[in-house]
Amino acid sequence: MIRTAIVGGSGYAGGELLRLLLQHPQVEVAAVTSRRYSGQYVHQVHPNLRRLTQLQFAGPEELGEVDLLFLALPHGEAQRRIQGDAARAERIIDLSADFRLRDAADYLRWYGAPHQAPEWLPRFVYGLPELNRQALRGARYVSGVGCNATAGILALLPLVQASVLGNNLRIVVEIKVGSSEAGAEPQPGSHHPERSGVIRTFSPMGHRHTAEVIQAFGLPQVILTITSVDVVRGVLATAHAETLPGVTTKDLWQGYRQVVQENLFLRLVKEARGIHRVPDPKILAGSNFADLGFDLDEESGHVVSMCALDNLMKGAAGTAVQCMNLMHGWDETLGLTFPGLHPI
Amino acid sequence: MIRTAIVGGSGYAGGELLRLLLQHPQVEVAAVTSRRYSGQYVHQVHPNLRRLTQLQFAGPEELGEVDLLFLALPHGEAQRRIQGDAARAERIIDLSADFRLRDAADYLRWYGAPHQAPEWLPRFVYGLPELNRQALRGARYVSGVGCNATAGILALLPLVQASVLGNNLRIVVEIKVGSSEAGAEPQPGSHHPERSGVIRTFSPMGHRHTAEVIQAFGLPQVILTITSVDVVRGVLATAHAETLPGVTTKDLWQGYRQVVQENLFLRLVKEARGIHRVPDPKILAGSNFADLGFDLDEESGHVVSMCALDNLMKGAAGTAVQCMNLMHGWDETLGLTFPGLHPI
Amino acid sequence: MIRTAIVGGSGYAGGELLRLLLQHPQVEVAAVTSRRYSGQYVHQVHPNLRRLTQLQFAGPEELGEVDLLFLALPHGEAQRRIQGDAARAERIIDLSADFRLRDAADYLRWYGAPHQAPEWLPRFVYGLPELNRQALRGARYVSGVGCNATAGILALLPLVQASVLGNNLRIVVEIKVGSSEAGAEPQPGSHHPERSGVIRTFSPMGHRHTAEVIQAFGLPQVILTITSVDVVRGVLATAHAETLPGVTTKDLWQGYRQVVQENLFLRLVKEARGIHRVPDPKILAGSNFADLGFDLDEESGHVVSMCALDNLMKGAAGTAVQCMNLMHGWDETLGLTFPGLHPI
Amino acid sequence: MIRTAIVGGSGYAGGELLRLLLQHPQVEVAAVTSRRYSGQYVHQVHPNLRRLTQLQFAGPEELGEVDLLFLALPHGEAQRRIQGDAARAERIIDLSADFRLRDAADYLRWYGAPHQAPEWLPRFVYGLPELNRQALRGARYVSGVGCNATAGILALLPLVQASVLGNNLRIVVEIKVGSSEAGAEPQPGSHHPERSGVIRTFSPMGHRHTAEVIQAFGLPQVILTITSVDVVRGVLATAHAETLPGVTTKDLWQGYRQVVQENLFLRLVKEARGIHRVPDPKILAGSNFADLGFDLDEESGHVVSMCALDNLMKGAAGTAVQCMNLMHGWDETLGLTFPGLHPI
Repeated sequence: MIRTAIVGGSGYAGGELLRLLLQHPQVEVAAVTSRRYSGQYVHQVHPNLRRLTQLQFAGPEELGEVDLLFLALPHGEAQRRIQGDAARAERIIDLSADFRLRDAADYLRWYGAPHQAPEWLPRFVYGLPELNRQALRGARYVSGVGCNATAGILALLPLVQASVLGNNLRIVVEIKVGSSEAGAEPQPGSHHPERSGVIRTFSPMGHRHTAEVIQAFGLPQVILTITSVDVVRGVLATAHAETLPGVTTKDLWQGYRQVVQENLFLRLVKEARGIHRVPDPKILAGSNFADLGFDLDEESGHVVSMCALDNLMKGAAGTAVQCMNLMHGWDETLGLTFPGLHPI
Repeated sequence: MIRTAIVGGSGYAGGELLRLLLQHPQVEVAAVTSRRYSGQYVHQVHPNLRRLTQLQFAGPEELGEVDLLFLALPHGEAQRRIQGDAARAERIIDLSADFRLRDAADYLRWYGAPHQAPEWLPRFVYGLPELNRQALRGARYVSGVGCNATAGILALLPLVQASVLGNNLRIVVEIKVGSSEAGAEPQPGSHHPERSGVIRTFSPMGHRHTAEVIQAFGLPQVILTITSVDVVRGVLATAHAETLPGVTTKDLWQGYRQVVQENLFLRLVKEARGIHRVPDPKILAGSNFADLGFDLDEESGHVVSMCALDNLMKGAAGTAVQCMNLMHGWDETLGLTFPGLHPI
Repeated sequence: MIRTAIVGGSGYAGGELLRLLLQHPQVEVAAVTSRRYSGQYVHQVHPNLRRLTQLQFAGPEELGEVDLLFLALPHGEAQRRIQGDAARAERIIDLSADFRLRDAADYLRWYGAPHQAPEWLPRFVYGLPELNRQALRGARYVSGVGCNATAGILALLPLVQASVLGNNLRIVVEIKVGSSEAGAEPQPGSHHPERSGVIRTFSPMGHRHTAEVIQAFGLPQVILTITSVDVVRGVLATAHAETLPGVTTKDLWQGYRQVVQENLFLRLVKEARGIHRVPDPKILAGSNFADLGFDLDEESGHVVSMCALDNLMKGAAGTAVQCMNLMHGWDETLGLTFPGLHPI
Repeated sequence: MIRTAIVGGSGYAGGELLRLLLQHPQVEVAAVTSRRYSGQYVHQVHPNLRRLTQLQFAGPEELGEVDLLFLALPHGEAQRRIQGDAARAERIIDLSADFRLRDAADYLRWYGAPHQAPEWLPRFVYGLPELNRQALRGARYVSGVGCNATAGILALLPLVQASVLGNNLRIVVEIKVGSSEAGAEPQPGSHHPERSGVIRTFSPMGHRHTAEVIQAFGLPQVILTITSVDVVRGVLATAHAETLPGVTTKDLWQGYRQVVQENLFLRLVKEARGIHRVPDPKILAGSNFADLGFDLDEESGHVVSMCALDNLMKGAAGTAVQCMNLMHGWDETLGLTFPGLHPI
């Protein structure tokens, strides 16, 4: 049993993380902080947790020492407080973007401001087990993952790992996302009458998560295009790339199967019949699975690779718990066995 | 041709009204005011109006004289400015609740504050043509209608008009509503991740619109229960009442047909086959129709009467235009012929 | 460990039951039958189960002996085969309506056909632990519950148990439901363009589940009115009743708290602030909780009591597993600890 | 006034067409045929038309002579009956795919069967006014348009017309669609519990509408990828292409403005503030507008061009009426002035 705390637990990723930790067999949750909701029961903000816990939000100043500290703060805050937090906890998992990129210059480029603690960047491992499983075992400092980045990276992973992609090609990753991705804070664009039923390509190019996809594989040209659709949870990345000449559908089957075999939370969805033939985030709400699929036009070499996931689970809190499991040498799937619902 | 203006035209009812007036053959829109959006094109707020008009929001101080003034302000503002507005315009239609109730004491009871211009209450006609058609012809001051009240009143209208209801009975009107009813201002509860998919009985009893239903028919005991569901537009009122002994389904058919015959915007939906057997607001988006239906258990006398409508049309802007038509002696349906969409 | 099988496992309740049983620590699933999908992997029909099990649907004829048999067939089939199934299994839980009503005459009245095995009716316990916990302990034959009936019964339970209801009053239970309630078989009315966005009171009176609510409490006059809304899972029952003179809000607080204390899967949701003040099925997807709330007008005695639940869980498969736990003397919550998601 | 008839008027495009024709000032609807619904009122199938018309569906054999015949039949039927229909009507507009492609070989390739009336292909004009306005004036035989094709073509139109695209490049058009696109016939995949909330890339490559986009501009390599999302109406095409070196954002502004100026139903949506910055089909339900937008990365030359439309209007019935107007020399916008709703 380890003692953990969540800093900034009133947001959606923080709430999802809390749900997972409360039922994790190796974890005790010592505190969940929230400046705004300090003193209120966590179930007043996260109503699904009613009767599961009598925990109340603590003020930021009440945070004590723990074995593992989760940071679930808005971008920019973790890098300002990391020194103090490191004094509080042997291990840290930061769900924000603050320690995802290795190169401090990328923060200036993609986030528009210089990083406040660049010396900490090399100490963090990018927290995606499917990329960095070995490094995560025993790591002390682990970053979170961008939900869109995770979907994009996992869609490309089998193609990269099987070395079937051409080198100099532009890759287009079209991503469709739900509303929970934008966080718990109401905005004019998240007002239900305006947000409901949208198909809104709010970020045609230049989304910050692009940096993570580029970093993951060293691919030169990657375009992420993000479109909001009318779901609350869920990301589908549909990646368009070109394969090397001669690559066959059979080669891809082999490559995808390999990746799925090596990663317990990846599944290949490529059915010839029925209505569940392709990956769809719909059935993944609450689950840590990421579902992969693909289609190849052998003649032109155009490949479409898909990845569906729950942005709050595999794209945030679920992967964070998966990293926690690896860091402590526990079973990678511990506390992550909820398979999702059908229908939903 | 008359000259009109809308005060407070950036809200949802104001926007819908503007759409109707821009295409109304007898109307010229001289100005639409908005404190917040003054100077911006109306199509930046109401994107469906792009390319239809180059109108920009005017500041409140730019409002001049017109023939007919529409007030579309939050509750409480019209009663404070009515004197000045009456000097600006021969005729006024106020979409807010400020002049709906005849008895000033009801404002204290249902709205929690004394009315600021009680001497104006008797000058206003309650703007529901199905109740007050005769009085609306030639009226100078007309109030708007509550969307939930309209659905409740129209559900009960055929029963009242046919004199089939017992006198001392409690009437339960269960109302399901979409998110546009709560207005254009983002709230924590309207944040898409929280509002999407709800079935939330946010007002079990005591909703303000109850006062309008009570006033309409002088019924002693009426309960309005309001439940939010996941649509943007639409209200369905399902009213439960008891008929006098001996009332038959045939009697009710006759009563509903009578009401429908007398009112061009009411329709009776009571089909024995197909999938469109009962009133459903789904197909009424943008339409001024209100669809009625009923079911009677002859043995117990329990009757369920339904009314579906679009809260922004028949429940607000559409009825306001219908009143305008009556006030000016025009065809009651002028500018209100859009029949709604299927499927949608 | 006991051996179980599900007959008719391709439907939604069957699939949900399978999900629960696959992760239940005391249960082994020997077979899941489906005439139509015989030979196909269960994850082709229930895609959330991919990688959790390699189980394939068995044909009906492949069903062998087990300790506990779950029947998840369309209405009318279980009563025809019960004799044979009883020879196969020591214990039976039937999710259909076939053994819910004690009086065979009620089947003629509510289901339109005489019961085919009336001698079995007294052997079955109505499978709602909140009503029959004691009888379920050690029971051999247990019926399922109607999802709407469960919501109605649980909404009324605190009022009945606290003896605050008048005797001769009509009770109106307004129920809003999702699309999964109508089953996995496509129908014209479930076609997405037609079903999406509906507020459709498809059953104003006379719904079959009414019989279960009447039976539960011996109430003389209960009206169930069912309205479809745009969610997949979820039921909200809003019950209208009249209390005895002198009953106070404080009395009801006490009554509801009592019921919640006695039943681990009931929760009282009655918050004074925040956006989660009333029961809402939205956050209950996949959870076995039923959330209760109420509002009382002390002056008139009108009480509104609400119950929210997931129709496939607390309204079907979850309650069936809860019954299984009781029948075997296990912890009542075993395998039912998923708390639901927020946001969703 | 001309006399028209619709063959196959029970489908969604047929119903939408009927709505438009019933309110068109120059048109009389002589008949609407439907094999299945013959004898039923059209408002039993298209409930929005209740009280607008007392028209009943005619059997196919009751079809007489008219001035203009609309065919709204499933793919493959029009080509088998065109000879007979041409004897019935001076002018024909066929909404199906049967006469969209000029080259009969393309039917074998994309539709999997040889065309049954290839001699008729050259007599038909592809019915998209934005491509073929001149040819449509006075045309006798006009084809419909594919809804996805229309969105793809209009997204690319400003780039092609401004000659800013490179020649040999692959163009990826990512298209998100609603459920009405698949027609009025229930399918397993359109069952609401399965279809609701999906993000399902059901056609990664090879969609039939690709042929129309290729034909429109003679582009060598076009990929259409189609993803279902949870709306009923609406298409958003997001096209990815590469511009010639040196092309600037200012060049594109000019090109898009030019196209919008020449076409009354196109609008450019590219706002710097507010929440309506990009094209979104949400606000276009019932409208004949197609909204365009773009984003260019001047450095890499990657351009993202968007087109939003209502698949049943600009993508089907609306464009058909627009063609009818052109064929008869009427105002191109006649009967097509409904601007869509906000919010919705």
